[in-house]
Amino acid sequence: MAHKAAILGASGYAGGQLVRLLDDHPAIDVVYLGAHTWAGQTLSAAHPQLAGGDRIMGPIDVNMLPDTDIAFLALPHGESWNIGSSLAQRNVKVVDLGSDFRLDSDDRYYEAYGQHHPRAEELSLWVYGLPELFGPAISAAGRVAAPGCYPTSALLALAPLVQEGIIDIDGIIIDAISGVSGAGRKVSADLTFGAVAEGVRAYGVFTHRHRPEIEAGLELFVGAPASTVFTPHLAPMQAGLLSTCYGQLVGSPGDVESVLKDFYADARFVDVIDRPPQTRWVVGSNRALLSTHTDERTGKVIVLSAIDNLGKGAAGQAVQCANLMLGELEDTGLTSAGWLP
Amino acid sequence: MAHKAAILGASGYAGGQLVRLLDDHPAIDVVYLGAHTWAGQTLSAAHPQLAGGDRIMGPIDVNMLPDTDIAFLALPHGESWNIGSSLAQRNVKVVDLGSDFRLDSDDRYYEAYGQHHPRAEELSLWVYGLPELFGPAISAAGRVAAPGCYPTSALLALAPLVQEGIIDIDGIIIDAISGVSGAGRKVSADLTFGAVAEGVRAYGVFTHRHRPEIEAGLELFVGAPASTVFTPHLAPMQAGLLSTCYGQLVGSPGDVESVLKDFYADARFVDVIDRPPQTRWVVGSNRALLSTHTDERTGKVIVLSAIDNLGKGAAGQAVQCANLMLGELEDTGLTSAGWLP
Amino acid sequence: MAHKAAILGASGYAGGQLVRLLDDHPAIDVVYLGAHTWAGQTLSAAHPQLAGGDRIMGPIDVNMLPDTDIAFLALPHGESWNIGSSLAQRNVKVVDLGSDFRLDSDDRYYEAYGQHHPRAEELSLWVYGLPELFGPAISAAGRVAAPGCYPTSALLALAPLVQEGIIDIDGIIIDAISGVSGAGRKVSADLTFGAVAEGVRAYGVFTHRHRPEIEAGLELFVGAPASTVFTPHLAPMQAGLLSTCYGQLVGSPGDVESVLKDFYADARFVDVIDRPPQTRWVVGSNRALLSTHTDERTGKVIVLSAIDNLGKGAAGQAVQCANLMLGELEDTGLTSAGWLP
Amino acid sequence: MAHKAAILGASGYAGGQLVRLLDDHPAIDVVYLGAHTWAGQTLSAAHPQLAGGDRIMGPIDVNMLPDTDIAFLALPHGESWNIGSSLAQRNVKVVDLGSDFRLDSDDRYYEAYGQHHPRAEELSLWVYGLPELFGPAISAAGRVAAPGCYPTSALLALAPLVQEGIIDIDGIIIDAISGVSGAGRKVSADLTFGAVAEGVRAYGVFTHRHRPEIEAGLELFVGAPASTVFTPHLAPMQAGLLSTCYGQLVGSPGDVESVLKDFYADARFVDVIDRPPQTRWVVGSNRALLSTHTDERTGKVIVLSAIDNLGKGAAGQAVQCANLMLGELEDTGLTSAGWLP
Repeated sequence: MAHKAAILGASGYAGGQLVRLLDDHPAIDVVYLGAHTWAGQTLSAAHPQLAGGDRIMGPIDVNMLPDTDIAFLALPHGESWNIGSSLAQRNVKVVDLGSDFRLDSDDRYYEAYGQHHPRAEELSLWVYGLPELFGPAISAAGRVAAPGCYPTSALLALAPLVQEGIIDIDGIIIDAISGVSGAGRKVSADLTFGAVAEGVRAYGVFTHRHRPEIEAGLELFVGAPASTVFTPHLAPMQAGLLSTCYGQLVGSPGDVESVLKDFYADARFVDVIDRPPQTRWVVGSNRALLSTHTDERTGKVIVLSAIDNLGKGAAGQAVQCANLMLGELEDTGLTSAGWLP
Repeated sequence: MAHKAAILGASGYAGGQLVRLLDDHPAIDVVYLGAHTWAGQTLSAAHPQLAGGDRIMGPIDVNMLPDTDIAFLALPHGESWNIGSSLAQRNVKVVDLGSDFRLDSDDRYYEAYGQHHPRAEELSLWVYGLPELFGPAISAAGRVAAPGCYPTSALLALAPLVQEGIIDIDGIIIDAISGVSGAGRKVSADLTFGAVAEGVRAYGVFTHRHRPEIEAGLELFVGAPASTVFTPHLAPMQAGLLSTCYGQLVGSPGDVESVLKDFYADARFVDVIDRPPQTRWVVGSNRALLSTHTDERTGKVIVLSAIDNLGKGAAGQAVQCANLMLGELEDTGLTSAGWLP
Repeated sequence: MAHKAAILGASGYAGGQLVRLLDDHPAIDVVYLGAHTWAGQTLSAAHPQLAGGDRIMGPIDVNMLPDTDIAFLALPHGESWNIGSSLAQRNVKVVDLGSDFRLDSDDRYYEAYGQHHPRAEELSLWVYGLPELFGPAISAAGRVAAPGCYPTSALLALAPLVQEGIIDIDGIIIDAISGVSGAGRKVSADLTFGAVAEGVRAYGVFTHRHRPEIEAGLELFVGAPASTVFTPHLAPMQAGLLSTCYGQLVGSPGDVESVLKDFYADARFVDVIDRPPQTRWVVGSNRALLSTHTDERTGKVIVLSAIDNLGKGAAGQAVQCANLMLGELEDTGLTSAGWLP
Repeated sequence: MAHKAAILGASGYAGGQLVRLLDDHPAIDVVYLGAHTWAGQTLSAAHPQLAGGDRIMGPIDVNMLPDTDIAFLALPHGESWNIGSSLAQRNVKVVDLGSDFRLDSDDRYYEAYGQHHPRAEELSLWVYGLPELFGPAISAAGRVAAPGCYPTSALLALAPLVQEGIIDIDGIIIDAISGVSGAGRKVSADLTFGAVAEGVRAYGVFTHRHRPEIEAGLELFVGAPASTVFTPHLAPMQAGLLSTCYGQLVGSPGDVESVLKDFYADARFVDVIDRPPQTRWVVGSNRALLSTHTDERTGKVIVLSAIDNLGKGAAGQAVQCANLMLGELEDTGLTSAGWLP
C-alpha cells in the first residue's frame, strides 16, 4: 500500500519538483499540498507545467493536514523548525528541504545565521540527509534534514578523498556555479531576466551560509574539523550546479580517481566519469557526475561535481531520503534521465 | 508481455527523447538502438544525459535488427522511405518521425521537395499520425507517419474550427516560433550559441516544407482544399513551439472556444485554457495548450497553440501513436509533467 | 556650442540608453539626470554599465531643472503629459519617449487607454516622431512624441507600401516578437529569469495599446483609416524586436521590394536587404533592417522588420528626432554599429 | 592626420570588434580588412551588425597590403608569427591579438604548446601588451603581443598585490568563467546553442594555455617565478569574463583594497569597486572592474575581476595599446560605456 505524503511549500521551485517526482512515484501518494501565499489557489496557478493542476493548495497548518505517513517541507529558512517539530512529534516522518535543521550545533548555527537556534536542543534529533555518506542513519531516521545544493555537490566530491587521506582536510576551496532556481522563486530586481541574462556574478563571498554546512558535513563524516573557502556564482541558466573543488594532495596521485570510484561503486546516483561533467547532463535527474584531475606540479587535486540543484540538490535527494526512511528501494521514482536534449 | 522496440536514429534530438520516454515505458522494451555516424559508440557518447549510457548503438541496417514488434525511425529527410518500407514488409509496425511519408500525394511531395517521391505508390499505405484527429486510423495502422512539429501545433488549433465552420478554410495564417532543437542536432554556423542567443529570426518565408503538410492535414481532416500562409521563426531557447494561428471568423464568436473545448473534451493531451499558453508550460511533456481569442472589430480569430517540439511535436507523439497501434492505453509512458521549474 | 539636454527618467532602460548615446553625442551636453525613486542616488547605482557613474540623479521636477535646450522624457505612461506640457511652455524642446502624446485624438486615446486624455486639446501640438515618415514636421517641431517600439517597426515596413498602393490598407496583420527590455525595468514575477528563459509567449492579444498607435500612424501617413491586427510576443532575449507584417498584395509583386528600396534610398538608418533580417544585427544601433517576400499563390506580402527596441524603437530614435529639432545632422551621435559579436 | 590601420582577421569575433572600435576612432583610419576564408566577401557577410558592410575583405598577404602605419592581427594561434614578423620588419607597428608572441621564452612556449617556437629568437622583440602593468614599454614598442582574455583579468587582479607583498606569489588559484565568444567563431558540436544553453562546464583543467601566460606575466611584473592553478569555465552567455582569484594573505588584511586602489588610481579603465562586479557591467566597454574580499579565518584573499573578453580582453585592449604606440591619448576611441541595458 502506498505511503501517504504531504508537501508543504508546494508553490516554490523545490516544491514543484517534489510534486512532479512524487506524482510519478509508485509507492507514494500525495495527499496534501500546502502553501502560504498560494493557499486556496490551484496547483496550476503556481505551476502551469505540472499535471493534476486543478488540485487546490491548502494552508501550511499542522492541524489541517490529513493523516499522512511522511511530510516534505520545502519552506523558506526559519519556517520549518516549528512545523517540522510538531509533525515529528505526531510520528509523521519528516524530510525538511530547508536549512533549519542541517547544522549540528547551535554554535555553528549562530556562525551561519547570526542568531541562536530556537530549538537548539532538537538539532541532534535530525539526521543529515546525504544518503551516499549517511545512508544507514537516514534509513533509521524519522527526521531528516536534506542538504543544501552546494553542500551536496561539494561533499560528494570531497568527503571520500578527505576520509581516505588523499587530500588535506585544510585548505579546501570550493568554487561553484549555480543556475538561478537556486535562489528560489523570489521576485527581486537582481533576478529579473534583464539582470541575469548575459552575465555572471559571484555572491556571498566568504559569507554564504552553505560554507558552515559544508564544514559540518565534512566534520560529521571524517570526524575532524574542516576549514574551507566557498565562493558561489550565478550563471544565466535555470538549473544546474557545478562545483570546482580544489584540495591539496597528500596521498598518491594515482589514488584520487580510484578512491572515488571505489567509494561510489554501489552508489546508484553518483558516477565518476573521465571527462569534465556538464550540468546539462544531470538537469532533471537525481544524478551527480564527478571527475578528478591531478596536477603534480602544484600538488593540487580538482574534483568537478555536477548536479541538478533542484534534483540531487533538493527534491530528488529528498525523495531518495524518503525512500530509505520508508523502506523502499533507494531509486524508486527517481529513474528519470536528464531532460535537456 | 512488453512489446519489443527498435529506435533507429537514436543519436539525434528526437531519438534521444524516444530513448528517454521508452526506457520508462511500462509496456515497451527497447531492444535496439541504431545510428549512422554514431554507430559503434555508446549511447552516453551521444546523450550524456540519458540513463543506460553504456548501451552500444548499432548500424541502421534492417538485416542487423533483432526481432522487434515496432520500430521508431528518427532519421533525416530522405532516409526513412527505404528502411521504413522494408520493415513494414516484414510486419514490423513502424512509426516514422521523419517527413518521408507525411504527405498524401506525389504532387504535394513534389511541391514541397521539388522532386518525385521514390515510392509514391506507397504513400497511401501510411497513416498521418496525429491521434487527436486521426485516432481510429492510427489504431488500425501498421505504418504511421508522425507529423512535423509545426503541423502538429497548427492542426490541433485549426482543424476543429475549420471543420465546424467557425473559421474560413481560406486565408489562414500561421505564425510560429520554435526553439533550436527543431532544427535537429546539426552543427552549422547559423546554430552556434553565438549566432542564436539574444536574437530572433524568420526563416523559410513562404517556402517552408511544413506548409504543404499543414494543408494536407487540413484537407484530410475537413475534406476540402486549404490554402495557408506559414512563417516559422527561431527563438533563443532549446525547445518549445508556439503557433499564433489567424483565421477569419465565419461562425459565431461565442462558439470559438466552446467548439474547441468540446472537440478536445476527451483528449488526454490537449487542454484549452483561458490565458495565452507559454511554451515553458509544456516542454518535457506530451501536452498541447490552446487558447482562443476573438476580435469582433476585424472578425479575426486567433488560436494560440503551445507544444514541446520534441514532445508532442516529435517523440511524445510517436509514442502516443505507438500506444494506439499496440493496443495500449493512449497515455502509457506519457504522463510526465513539464520539466521547466 | 553644444545644446544642453536633460534626461528625465534616467534610471530606466530607455533612460540608460539615452545617457549612453548622449554622453557620446558631439553636439549635446547632458546637464541633468532626473529620476523618481532613484533620485538622490548615483547613476552607477541604476546603471553600473555606464560611464560617469558618480553623477547624482535629481528629482523629476520642472522647477529643479537647470537651464536646458531640450528635454528627453523616458517616463512611465501617464507621467509625461504634465511635465511635458510645462517644459514646452517654457520653450524647452521636448522629446517624449512615452505614450502620452503619441495618439492623434482623444477618441483614439480612449480606445487605447479606456479613459480620456487629461490634456486632449494639446494632442495636436505634438508631432509623431518617426523621422523617415514625418521628418519635416519633426524638424519644425518643439514637441515630439517618439513612437513606440512596435509601431516603429511596423510603420517602417508598411507605410510606404500602403501609400503606394502595393498592399491593401485593410487586413494587415502584424505579428511581432520582442526582447524583455521592451517591458521596461519593472520587477514582476512574469519577468524573472526563471519565468522568461527557455520560453515564448504571446501577450495583449487583440488588446495591446500599440495597435491603435499603429493605426494612427498609418492613417496620418496615408490619409485613410486603417484596421489592423497586432500580436506581440515575448522571447528570451534582452533586446531586439522583429515584426512579421502580412499584407494583401494589390499592386504588382515586382514592385514590393523596389518601392520600399526607393522610399528608403536616402534614409540613413533603414536598409532593405535580401535575406530575412535578424534582430542580432541591429541591437545596439539605430538601424532598421527590412526584407520583403511575396507569395503569388496567396497574394500575400510579408515584410520583415528588425530593430533594437531600445535603439530605433526608443532612445536612438529620440536622439534622431532631437538632431532634426536642433538643426544637427540626422545621424550625429548615432553612427554606432550593432554590438552583438 | 589619422594613422592608417589594417585589420587582418577581420571576419572573427575579435576582428569584428576591432572594426567596430576603429571605425569610430577619431585618430585611426581603417584602410584594409583582411581575412582567410572570407576574403573576397563583404564585411557584411561576416558581420551583418557592422556599419560600412559593403567593404570587401582582401587576403591576408603582406604583399597585398596598402601602405599602413599599424596592423592589428586577430588570427588563430600559429598564424601570426610569420606575417607579424614581416610587417614589423617593414616598420609597420604591429599589435597581435593572438598568442604567438605572448610568452617570454621558448621554454615556456614549449610548456604551453608542446612544440618549439618557429621564431624563438624574436620572442624578446615583442612587448606584452597589458598597459596598466607595462605601459611605458608598450609606448616605446613597435611590436606588441596583446594578452589573452583570462590573463588580462587575472593579472590585473593579482599583479599589484603580489608585487606589494600582500599575497603570496605561490598557491594562487584562478577560477574563471567566460562567455562563448572566448572560443572564437569556430563551428563545432560543443558550441552549438543546443550544447551551450542551460549549462556550465569546466574545460582545459590544469592544461589550458593561458596558465603559463599568467605565470609569465606575473614573473615579468614582479621579477620572481610564480606557480598558479587556473581553471576556466564556459557559461551560456555571449561575452564577459569573471575571474575569481584566490591568494594567501601575507600582508595586512586592511591593505588589500587600498593597495589595489592606489595602484589603479590613475588607470583610466580599471575600477576597484565595493561590491562583486558583474560581467554585465563591462560588456561592450574596455573597463575592468575589481573587488577585494578578505577572510581572516582562513587568511585567504579573493579578488574578483570582470572584463569583456572581447573588449579589455581582446579588441579594446589592442586599441589601447595602439593608442600608446601611436602617441595618442590612451582612451581615444575607447570611451564607450557597456551596452547591456
